[in-house]
Amino acid sequence: MKKLIKIKKAIISLSDKSNLKIILTNLKKFNIKIISSGGTYKEIKKLGFKCEEISNYTGFKEMLDGRVKTLHPKIHAGLLSIRNNKKHIKELKNNNFEEIDLVIVNFYPFEKSINETKNFKKIIEKIDIGGPTMVRAAAKNFNSVTVISSPNQYEDLINELKLNKGSTSINFRYKSALHSFNEIAYYDSVISNFLNHSSNLSFPEKKTFHGKLSEKLRYGENPHQIASFYKGSEFNSLKQLHGKKLSYNNYNDIFSSLEVLSTFQKNLGTVIVKHANPCGVSSEKKSIISFSHAFNCDPISAFGGIVCCNYKIDFNLAKKINQNFFEIIIAKGFEKRALKILKNKKNLRIIDSSNYKYKAIFNPVFHRDSFLLQNIDSFKIIEKDLKFVSKIKPNKYQIQNLIFALNVCRYVKSNAIVLVKNKSTIGIGSGQPNRLDSCNIAINKAKQFVPNELYNSVAASDAFFPFTDGIEKLVQSGVKAIIQPSGSIRDKEIIKFANDTNTILVFSKTRHFKH
Amino acid sequence: MKKLIKIKKAIISLSDKSNLKIILTNLKKFNIKIISSGGTYKEIKKLGFKCEEISNYTGFKEMLDGRVKTLHPKIHAGLLSIRNNKKHIKELKNNNFEEIDLVIVNFYPFEKSINETKNFKKIIEKIDIGGPTMVRAAAKNFNSVTVISSPNQYEDLINELKLNKGSTSINFRYKSALHSFNEIAYYDSVISNFLNHSSNLSFPEKKTFHGKLSEKLRYGENPHQIASFYKGSEFNSLKQLHGKKLSYNNYNDIFSSLEVLSTFQKNLGTVIVKHANPCGVSSEKKSIISFSHAFNCDPISAFGGIVCCNYKIDFNLAKKINQNFFEIIIAKGFEKRALKILKNKKNLRIIDSSNYKYKAIFNPVFHRDSFLLQNIDSFKIIEKDLKFVSKIKPNKYQIQNLIFALNVCRYVKSNAIVLVKNKSTIGIGSGQPNRLDSCNIAINKAKQFVPNELYNSVAASDAFFPFTDGIEKLVQSGVKAIIQPSGSIRDKEIIKFANDTNTILVFSKTRHFKH
Repeated sequence: MKKLIKIKKAIISLSDKSNLKIILTNLKKFNIKIISSGGTYKEIKKLGFKCEEISNYTGFKEMLDGRVKTLHPKIHAGLLSIRNNKKHIKELKNNNFEEIDLVIVNFYPFEKSINETKNFKKIIEKIDIGGPTMVRAAAKNFNSVTVISSPNQYEDLINELKLNKGSTSINFRYKSALHSFNEIAYYDSVISNFLNHSSNLSFPEKKTFHGKLSEKLRYGENPHQIASFYKGSEFNSLKQLHGKKLSYNNYNDIFSSLEVLSTFQKNLGTVIVKHANPCGVSSEKKSIISFSHAFNCDPISAFGGIVCCNYKIDFNLAKKINQNFFEIIIAKGFEKRALKILKNKKNLRIIDSSNYKYKAIFNPVFHRDSFLLQNIDSFKIIEKDLKFVSKIKPNKYQIQNLIFALNVCRYVKSNAIVLVKNKSTIGIGSGQPNRLDSCNIAINKAKQFVPNELYNSVAASDAFFPFTDGIEKLVQSGVKAIIQPSGSIRDKEIIKFANDTNTILVFSKTRHFKH
Repeated sequence: MKKLIKIKKAIISLSDKSNLKIILTNLKKFNIKIISSGGTYKEIKKLGFKCEEISNYTGFKEMLDGRVKTLHPKIHAGLLSIRNNKKHIKELKNNNFEEIDLVIVNFYPFEKSINETKNFKKIIEKIDIGGPTMVRAAAKNFNSVTVISSPNQYEDLINELKLNKGSTSINFRYKSALHSFNEIAYYDSVISNFLNHSSNLSFPEKKTFHGKLSEKLRYGENPHQIASFYKGSEFNSLKQLHGKKLSYNNYNDIFSSLEVLSTFQKNLGTVIVKHANPCGVSSEKKSIISFSHAFNCDPISAFGGIVCCNYKIDFNLAKKINQNFFEIIIAKGFEKRALKILKNKKNLRIIDSSNYKYKAIFNPVFHRDSFLLQNIDSFKIIEKDLKFVSKIKPNKYQIQNLIFALNVCRYVKSNAIVLVKNKSTIGIGSGQPNRLDSCNIAINKAKQFVPNELYNSVAASDAFFPFTDGIEKLVQSGVKAIIQPSGSIRDKEIIKFANDTNTILVFSKTRHFKH
């Protein structure tokens, strides 16, 4: 059952007038009458097609600078009447109203206006009232009415009309209605979020999120899962220069690496990510040393990982990078020669993040139809917020290293322990249900790959040590200074232990769990 | 500048007519004229208040069974005119239209209808067209118009009117408009998602998510982060019987534990979660043994964790549970005496999940304004999907244990290795950037807490072993059978190693990364 409905009359109202001619040409072929108003009406006439003005059609003159033109019973009864309902047919007839079979509408460009102006009044003016109302009415009545709410549906409409000689099928009308409700929900979510953001309302009683499909991925986190990526404005500024398409896990790893980099100083910092956890981080000044230190922290895990550089990659670094297998290289630009040799690896994904700007907004964590919503743990850790609780105080360089360690620590999955020497990680213990295990993992990593660096290194813990056992392990392995949030009932015991072993102990005021 | 606007005329149209009388009483005090229609009109008259019917006001008779009544220029010009714009004032006058200063509307209960009926036609009928249009128009024109879109705003409106003697301030109008746009975005997102779901459209071009604020949390993942919980229908079925309020991390851990339990057989399964990772799981038949095995897998990590039981907790088990410190107990009901002694711990959060039903829907992972969307890795792992590749084949009980191990493995953060004996975990290695490390962690856990169980145990890996080294470690420690997805270029080498060491090797067809 195709339930074909012949299109006799269409209403057209467009902000985006692209490809208008092709649609008009086809409507004309099937003798479809057109009503329109304002700019769309003028454009239709200019293109040489017949068209009746809405005010002429309704007998009601458009008013309030176009704020009220389609909000008229003759339009909406024409859209909403149930076609096989005798009462409805009679009521239309009594009012001298006619059925409207097709709506082609797109909305005032609200989202575009947000990006183009800071003028609040101008932005509000771009909230479309008439357009969404017609689209909602037509979409609700998809049993009889066809609704087209974006220019990328024109081709489908034309094909449908050709196939059915000027009619549309119920399948087509339903699909178009579905598309339209998605358009409307997205449009209203953009408005809602813009206003919440403008008003610093973080937790409205009813909250929506929205996204535009960027690409369907080959598969999800695993090959038997299906997945898609919905790209937001922030991610839009990343530019892939080379290599295969990004996978689900690539995107997820990129998310993690950008988080870490966002807290580094300008032009400083390398992070290597594997399984969404950093496995090597450095903010050494010289880029080639920065990369080497990040890599040497755990060269086995770095295999097949993501390298993310907060600086431009030069020729020498590119050569060094090319000696190993990575899936992705992200950098703030590439020297010409550097890019050329990196491109020798056909599959290597190369991404330019020069224009990337991190926005610290609120992030939801979904569990099916529930979600937790919180602000991102992204504030700057600075010296004056620290408390030096041991007898021996850290020197300036140790403080810098401690801050670096704690900063990395908050991006490592909890429980997290990070060992650092020369502003570079030398051991990372991640994702353990108890802190002592994380200490052991971090120490074992350092012993395996950079044993000589353990002496006089520093360590950070994402949460307090509940006992002295973890700190004891660290000190035994050569750690000289430790930073941790504090808050244990055994804090005093731990300070005493530090003093007894000539260890520097620093309390940050903040915990940094990440799950 | 309060920019007060005197309310002279209000339009009221309500699906939810609760507290109508109190609002009418107050509008009357300030001589506010009311226009309304249909059921709301009748109710207002019944309550003994004056009210003009909309059809009388517009001079246009409501039609199409109420589908068209407020979609009239006299209503919308009254809502949308800019009050200090001379042209607008003149146009209103010429048309004999009047300003409408207040809109009190709530929408047809679309969301409620989804839960109450499977009748698609009836649900579609509940898409409100007129209501959202009036609310959008009034909210856009918040400079002059006040809009109330839910009964929980009545009290605020009444206070505002009292405070300003029948007027509203710009702050109030803006806040109400903001609230209304949130209402509309939520309403449209519910429609959009219902239709997408009905049509099995997983990845629409434009996608929205929505939620209702359930509670503002004391803080987020860390004390310096602010957070809220938006509770969906699924979570709504959990009932907290006792204890402190849930924290951000509690919720997050509950999410993880429910995932694991959802794949267990009826009335079987205990999982203990810490830092969003399972640290002990068992599906032993007897509940007290099930709990003990889950606990003994890593009693140190279990401290302060979440115990989630897929069965009813009896008195003996409650006594046993009470010997340890946990943050949360979740179970499919509690025996009366069991509940009583658990409640002895004042802070222990006790949650009844008897009515909880897991829905395997799509889950987004947000990174600021981008997100990945995929279906959940929740299909049942069954024997016929497995490939027995070693010379020695597993017996039935070994197969059950291997399936259990792989099933737990997929809920452990990658890279994940899970050791199992008697359908209970004996060692879990989680969250490592390389597989060998996860093997070592799992083995060390088992050696630490249940060393006698290692002999003849089984192991699962969430992804393939790239080399024989990890398997070698497992076999050396006593593991007899291993399940893994396969897919390495060294698969043959690994099969040979299994045969050389009389190890049972099973290939699942599926990988189970989780990040």
